[in-house]
Amino acid sequence: AIMAELERERATQPEDFAQRTVIVTAGPTVEAIDPVRYLTNKSSGKMGFALAEAARARGARVILIAGPVTLDTPSGVERVNVQSARDMLDAACRYAIDADIFIGCAAVADYRVATPAEHKLKKTPGSTGLTLELVENPDIIATVAALPARPFMVGFAAETRELERFATDKLARKGLDMIAANDVLAPDLGFGSDHNAVTLYWQDGDSPRHEALPPATKRTLAHGILSRLMANFSAKASFDDRTPHGQTEA
Amino acid sequence: AIMAELERERATQPEDFAQRTVIVTAGPTVEAIDPVRYLTNKSSGKMGFALAEAARARGARVILIAGPVTLDTPSGVERVNVQSARDMLDAACRYAIDADIFIGCAAVADYRVATPAEHKLKKTPGSTGLTLELVENPDIIATVAALPARPFMVGFAAETRELERFATDKLARKGLDMIAANDVLAPDLGFGSDHNAVTLYWQDGDSPRHEALPPATKRTLAHGILSRLMANFSAKASFDDRTPHGQTEA
Repeated sequence: AIMAELERERATQPEDFAQRTVIVTAGPTVEAIDPVRYLTNKSSGKMGFALAEAARARGARVILIAGPVTLDTPSGVERVNVQSARDMLDAACRYAIDADIFIGCAAVADYRVATPAEHKLKKTPGSTGLTLELVENPDIIATVAALPARPFMVGFAAETRELERFATDKLARKGLDMIAANDVLAPDLGFGSDHNAVTLYWQDGDSPRHEALPPATKRTLAHGILSRLMANFSAKASFDDRTPHGQTEA
Repeated sequence: AIMAELERERATQPEDFAQRTVIVTAGPTVEAIDPVRYLTNKSSGKMGFALAEAARARGARVILIAGPVTLDTPSGVERVNVQSARDMLDAACRYAIDADIFIGCAAVADYRVATPAEHKLKKTPGSTGLTLELVENPDIIATVAALPARPFMVGFAAETRELERFATDKLARKGLDMIAANDVLAPDLGFGSDHNAVTLYWQDGDSPRHEALPPATKRTLAHGILSRLMANFSAKASFDDRTPHGQTEA
């Protein structure tokens, strides 16, 4: 009965992502300090997994590049497990070549420890502190967006204030096609929750556009994001088709 | 049928922890860098949850003080959720007053960021690094072990080398009654795994003792640890009973 229900639900999904390959990054990355300690970001992976599941239900081939999370792989989705931001970048670049759409939903660590210790660090007697020297990690989404045959690029911005300013800045600076911004301090939404709310930002030619998706389950929200994504993707694809090849290849 | 099986298994457990209150700490602690980033330790919480479940099955009142993990609370166990090492210390001291046995299985962060940022840290343009100034966290198990009416204290030592040296040093330095040491680099054991192997160390008067428990499921291992713990606890309790009150109260 459950299978029949799932089949029925599946059957009512639009197949608007058929023939499309979608990469979704999800979860946190972890950056080792030593074999026991690490730096990371808050991220349950639920939003990314919901996006992967929704894209698959709508007919896409989905590659889910996931940091360490305790979530089951959605049915039919190809999962690649990674630990660090550099691992995630490797996987992202490897799969991006064949992808139509890239959704960067992972909470990638901006910094890593310059030289992780091979063995567990011990407290130094007499010392009461520790100084960690961090170096910047590669920017995964900006790197993929800069590839010659880049996919349609969708980013996420988890912010604690000035959502619009930080999100639109990130959209432009990283060369993305669309960004989904959420306020991580909103009560009962975001990290670890089954619910979320995002505002989507994109450029329509020279005009900045945005659309707020109200609080919903991450599953419902995923479908809302994908619908807006596909509208923008299709518009861009038809625009690209109209562009004489000579113009871009010159 | 499953319930009947569980009931049967439960019925075959010794009730050797009846009338005892056991505190178990489990999982990692997380130390905020800002609202999004944090420092933490590798720990799924599985070993601590297995110990809590096993102690409960053997008749104890169990208080499980747990850092953020995605595990269900074992039936009949009282759970206290905490985030940081300081939260865990507060909970540990509050409950330790009434406890007979304290099992410190949590992977407590030794350090925290001196001053976590209120808002998400932004990369500084032009800068490629970040220096994190860390300060030492309170030592939970040593603090509880130093309480006037302290419970029987069992610690864990997750090491990457020189297991015996680090474990026996920790046993003596922190004033513990018993310590369980495991090699976190052993393949297929430890972090995140359902299996583990530990060596128990304790003092028998002036004689150092140890006993290696072979690789097993964390559930089986939990019962092995509790059996050895109860033997030592009983020996110590009967020794304490023989001690004239005047000697310790003077």
